[in-house]
Amino acid sequence: MAELLSELIEEAVASPESGESAAIAEAMLVEDADDIALFLESLPVEQRLSAWQEVPDSKKLEVLVDMRADPREPIIDRSDSSDWEKLFKDIDAEQLLELANSLPDKIVGQALSAMDRQQQQYFTDASAYAENQIGHWLSHEILALPLTAKVRDALRLIRRNVPDHADSIFLLNRAGQFSTAVKLTSVFGAPEHVPLVELAEEYIDIIKGADDCTAAARLVQDSGFSSLPVVDEDNRLLGRIDITNACELVNEYYERQVMSSAGMDEEEDLFAPVRKSAKSRAIWLGVNLLTAFLASWFIGLFEATLQQVVALAVLMPVVASMGGIAGSQTLTLIVRGLALGQVTNANRKALLDKELRVGGLNGVVWAIVIGIVAYFWFSEPLLGLVIGLAILVNIITAAIAGVLLPVILNKLKIDPALSGSVILTTVTDIVGFVAFLGLGTLFLL
Amino acid sequence: MAELLSELIEEAVASPESGESAAIAEAMLVEDADDIALFLESLPVEQRLSAWQEVPDSKKLEVLVDMRADPREPIIDRSDSSDWEKLFKDIDAEQLLELANSLPDKIVGQALSAMDRQQQQYFTDASAYAENQIGHWLSHEILALPLTAKVRDALRLIRRNVPDHADSIFLLNRAGQFSTAVKLTSVFGAPEHVPLVELAEEYIDIIKGADDCTAAARLVQDSGFSSLPVVDEDNRLLGRIDITNACELVNEYYERQVMSSAGMDEEEDLFAPVRKSAKSRAIWLGVNLLTAFLASWFIGLFEATLQQVVALAVLMPVVASMGGIAGSQTLTLIVRGLALGQVTNANRKALLDKELRVGGLNGVVWAIVIGIVAYFWFSEPLLGLVIGLAILVNIITAAIAGVLLPVILNKLKIDPALSGSVILTTVTDIVGFVAFLGLGTLFLL
Repeated sequence: MAELLSELIEEAVASPESGESAAIAEAMLVEDADDIALFLESLPVEQRLSAWQEVPDSKKLEVLVDMRADPREPIIDRSDSSDWEKLFKDIDAEQLLELANSLPDKIVGQALSAMDRQQQQYFTDASAYAENQIGHWLSHEILALPLTAKVRDALRLIRRNVPDHADSIFLLNRAGQFSTAVKLTSVFGAPEHVPLVELAEEYIDIIKGADDCTAAARLVQDSGFSSLPVVDEDNRLLGRIDITNACELVNEYYERQVMSSAGMDEEEDLFAPVRKSAKSRAIWLGVNLLTAFLASWFIGLFEATLQQVVALAVLMPVVASMGGIAGSQTLTLIVRGLALGQVTNANRKALLDKELRVGGLNGVVWAIVIGIVAYFWFSEPLLGLVIGLAILVNIITAAIAGVLLPVILNKLKIDPALSGSVILTTVTDIVGFVAFLGLGTLFLL
Repeated sequence: MAELLSELIEEAVASPESGESAAIAEAMLVEDADDIALFLESLPVEQRLSAWQEVPDSKKLEVLVDMRADPREPIIDRSDSSDWEKLFKDIDAEQLLELANSLPDKIVGQALSAMDRQQQQYFTDASAYAENQIGHWLSHEILALPLTAKVRDALRLIRRNVPDHADSIFLLNRAGQFSTAVKLTSVFGAPEHVPLVELAEEYIDIIKGADDCTAAARLVQDSGFSSLPVVDEDNRLLGRIDITNACELVNEYYERQVMSSAGMDEEEDLFAPVRKSAKSRAIWLGVNLLTAFLASWFIGLFEATLQQVVALAVLMPVVASMGGIAGSQTLTLIVRGLALGQVTNANRKALLDKELRVGGLNGVVWAIVIGIVAYFWFSEPLLGLVIGLAILVNIITAAIAGVLLPVILNKLKIDPALSGSVILTTVTDIVGFVAFLGLGTLFLL
């Protein structure tokens, strides 16, 4: 796909008017909706709107669903009510749930009124769950039979239609509660009169609608099944989460982690309007500015020292940078451990102990190296001592902050992937500057 | 799992001798190998070795395979040849491929000699592919039949055994080349004499053994199939890549990205030995130290200025930090776009254009804000002008570097997730310091 995508982007940029490129028209016919979505996201807004005209009507809804929220916005803004009417002809609850946040309430209402009762009910039920709960993201195309069903009932059901990644039939009791599952492969070859329960799996994970969506998705990925049942608090079957959905949810989790480390959103559009993009990034710049000013304020306490020993000003970035790097290494390791459930109250002390030793060892090694360099650079042995001590203090501080900060943020329900590194570098900047300039004041004046 | 994991870790830390905790012994019996692996990774080395003794022999090999390379090392180091004999009793090629890098050559040889001819051949074939090629990570349990086979042959095959996530039968011609696939669900219900080709899928993606493993894994995730066929350059079927493998490969890709942004390895052990851990992190600290010294050297050029205008030393971190943050935002967006194939030669210019506008807008806004703060702080209007101009220059530089750096690194086949941010901040540090101190020299002396 990567090569084709590259060619198509070239075509679209070269012939910006819609309908000009045969290659694009052809690709729109044969490619899957998710690949078309990827292609549209890669285009500047004007070209994206032209290319959108080329998407066959039958694929438009699915393409829109597959796009990220931000890049789909200009397309939604340009659509009028007759476009929506066409788009919503066969919309189902899952598709509307994906789109709902991007649409004005009025349009959501229009979509709802185009659905049948059953789908409307699915939409209402799913909307009752928050977006970080798996109940919001269910698939409702399921194979389900009563607990009393026989192999012949299963065969009849399967012959009608098997949804993608439905690898088992869910067996329900009379109250609609989930009992157990039978793999399709266990059904085939079995005599028609055998009760399905006799072929049921020994064990299948059951997900609750209120479960965290990333955790539930990982469970599906690890389960060996292609989809797992999702139930409400009374164990009634709500739907299923299939492996394709699970992969999307896990991938989104990781993308969010990577993007949020730079203060950005997973839904960010490569070609967002300049003002919108500048505004969304300005918030993060502003937060960082506050922390930078805070660090500056601490430096300002030592103005007199800096005036007399200008070498301190020259070397300040070295002290801050070493602390920041050492801290971000510990932080990254701990954040991953927290996400996997591997860092807990029980092993936190042992982790802190180990990170302190690693920090101590690296602190001593780099204190000596940097001390020697500083000594030769400025021909001042005491400066070497001062920077060496400051490096040691800062790398050890970084180890402590790297372990404790994400643990504390996690307990406060603040995502450590987003705010961990900015708080951490604030700590290492301030401790580094104060240690360096403070020791400088003591020894060098 | 998260809660159970937390309890188990507490148990293991509280009762470090093996065999002391009934809860752990119980969990080892019922939990899956991947959950046990996660648990063992969460323990300090001594407790990990004790807990390892509790793993039932039947699960030991699978647990070892599921662990990351670094945390499994102490277990491997403590194993003797009788342990290996037991472990290797039923080892297959895929398992040995996962372990091979952690094992001494002699032990790999011992494992190979425990396998049958077929598995040895699989191991040799897979080893011919590099670790970033999908051919290295194949699954060989496949459902395959000759192109001429009928439904009755398929039913016979399925009744024997269906491997996990094998949702289709691959049809091969006489030369062993892949022709097409039939979904199991299409076979059921069809009359026994029908040739399978008549039920074949219209389209299935075919992966080459030499394909990049992350790209191939994403293809499986998006395909709607639970596994896709992998062929050699002559189109002969090598094996398949199933959705579970695909998820592992994609998740590892993301973990690598997150970890490498801090200069660490995906395989890093939470409780790595202190010296080993310090050494592996020292490399990254060293690289960053060189760039910090480079920045310091540039600051050193302005010693005379700093001595006279100490406010410049106080405000230096603000200029560097704003450039670094703005640059890392652009960098993160572009790195993701490159990974998804969305950033190409064709749209690079448009992207640069957009990022320059975003940078220009944010540059002007923050130049004014910071200029005003600096003016009031130090009661020096020219200082406000100097820092404002430096901020503007640095944020625009950051936008240019943020777009071009990852594109250039990508062309040089250097992973921009690893080295992008360190090079970027070096650029923004140096440009920021030189602009700020240079303008300061011009206007303030």
